[in-house]
Amino acid sequence: MSPTDFTQKITAALATLDYGQQPIALYEPIRYIMALGGKRIRPLLTLMGAHLFTDKLDPVLRPALATEVFHNFTLLHDDIMDQAPLRRGQPTVHEKWNANVAILSGDVMVVRAYELFLDVPPTLLPTALRKFSQTAAEVCEGQQWDMDFETNEQVTIEQYMDMIRLKTAVLLGFCLELGALLGGASPEDADHLRQFGTDVGIAFQLRDDLLDVYGNAATFGKRVGGDIVSDKKTFLLLTAQAQAKAPQQAVLAQYLGQPTADAAAKVQAITEVYDQLGIRSQTEALINDYFQDALQHLERVDAPAERKALLRQWALELMARES
Amino acid sequence: MSPTDFTQKITAALATLDYGQQPIALYEPIRYIMALGGKRIRPLLTLMGAHLFTDKLDPVLRPALATEVFHNFTLLHDDIMDQAPLRRGQPTVHEKWNANVAILSGDVMVVRAYELFLDVPPTLLPTALRKFSQTAAEVCEGQQWDMDFETNEQVTIEQYMDMIRLKTAVLLGFCLELGALLGGASPEDADHLRQFGTDVGIAFQLRDDLLDVYGNAATFGKRVGGDIVSDKKTFLLLTAQAQAKAPQQAVLAQYLGQPTADAAAKVQAITEVYDQLGIRSQTEALINDYFQDALQHLERVDAPAERKALLRQWALELMARES
Repeated sequence: MSPTDFTQKITAALATLDYGQQPIALYEPIRYIMALGGKRIRPLLTLMGAHLFTDKLDPVLRPALATEVFHNFTLLHDDIMDQAPLRRGQPTVHEKWNANVAILSGDVMVVRAYELFLDVPPTLLPTALRKFSQTAAEVCEGQQWDMDFETNEQVTIEQYMDMIRLKTAVLLGFCLELGALLGGASPEDADHLRQFGTDVGIAFQLRDDLLDVYGNAATFGKRVGGDIVSDKKTFLLLTAQAQAKAPQQAVLAQYLGQPTADAAAKVQAITEVYDQLGIRSQTEALINDYFQDALQHLERVDAPAERKALLRQWALELMARES
Repeated sequence: MSPTDFTQKITAALATLDYGQQPIALYEPIRYIMALGGKRIRPLLTLMGAHLFTDKLDPVLRPALATEVFHNFTLLHDDIMDQAPLRRGQPTVHEKWNANVAILSGDVMVVRAYELFLDVPPTLLPTALRKFSQTAAEVCEGQQWDMDFETNEQVTIEQYMDMIRLKTAVLLGFCLELGALLGGASPEDADHLRQFGTDVGIAFQLRDDLLDVYGNAATFGKRVGGDIVSDKKTFLLLTAQAQAKAPQQAVLAQYLGQPTADAAAKVQAITEVYDQLGIRSQTEALINDYFQDALQHLERVDAPAERKALLRQWALELMARES
């Protein structure tokens, strides 16, 4: 099995899912957002987690899809909250329909995600659902922290790290743990895989922060410096604020929280502050710490080396991305 | 056990629920809406359903609370969609906080509801969750139909009956079925109880439509004729539209879909149309049909007569209410 094989399995299975038919305004938005695509990372991780321990992946497929339906629910509701106009280059559900439709369609997606878990064998179902529910609540907590931070002037780096862990990383960790448990892994191996996924998730999010400033505009896909223009409290900004001496404090005070007439000048000035403080190398070092921790957890998992290599390769490619 | 004993059990158990602590903006709204009160009908039905077959109600308690948490989630999200300013006389969550907080707190409530089901014995858990998930999706479908109807000029009585069944009745039926299953009932008895609850729920909603027009303003609690003023497509209006002859058609055409300068005149004119067509007695007859069907289902349940009498009494009191 190669990652492409897994992804084909997932794509084929997603195409057969029946979310419901009537009323159309409830179910059409679900088909729409699920069809927008994406890398299907979460079901991929679930299948790869199971594949470490078993060749029988069909029983894992529907629970794997549950994680993708849940993830897309979070995108749908987050887009309402963030008033985002576009998702994967297409109009968001609340733009294409309206906010009420987006709220209610999202609600049904949570229900459908739980239904997909009902294919988990009864002996594992309580554990799987308990872990999923805890993870789902944590993802909501991460989203609330993220919104809280927009108006909170006293965000610490520790709080920020906890936010990205909750909002992004714990679900990746859960997917691997779920796959492992369904594949018959020991609780210890399942736990190492969860920590592998969580660590990679945190590293991935930190890299996202880094690419916003130091990415290649042509390949990153977003405007470089978008976080800087919007005063977003990223790891880079919070670290700079914590370490700035008088000259850098002056530049930060000049630009942060002010309407910006010249966005390019702001991006350049803040980037210079980052450069002076060595923020790039500090961020890269932290990313590397998490990545090495992740690999150590993977190393400890008692599974065939050539199967673990697939997960290592997946993580390497994720970290090497430029967009 | 009397209904008061059940309600005391429920109130005490609700007070001990821990929805989560941080971030406060996520969890405080949940505590707020759950503390607004209400008659706790859904967990009451769950306990009364179980009590028909067992004296051991403690294992039923947390799943019973799940239905109340889920019901309050629907109120929270419905209030956003309906832009309702008040809930049980207090500011709604989206008014007291904001819509984003209301969306996300509601999302976590769905997760917490599913978590409360995890106290169901493993052998019954898949069945309980499958039935709950189907019911939860149906409640969302009912809410979407209700919103669709606001702008749909061609709503049939059949569609309306289906909407109130989905939006209100199926959850009451599920609560009784859940209690029955947890109490050890046969599938047949659980099914009769579900139908009893669904029928009572439909009768209850029809009575709500009736009270809006023919209720006593002092005891009904809402302004009499509120549905008429807002052109709400109730059973009464849809039946009147289907049966109106030329004179009544003229009155309906004069008042429906028009801004109303004199609300009292509109209420009086439409009520006269209802009187001419005998809408009140037709509605009362239909309510009675559902109520009698409900009682027949209860009759068929194989459980002690004095315990079934509690459910019969509950239904009678619900139907006798003037508000």
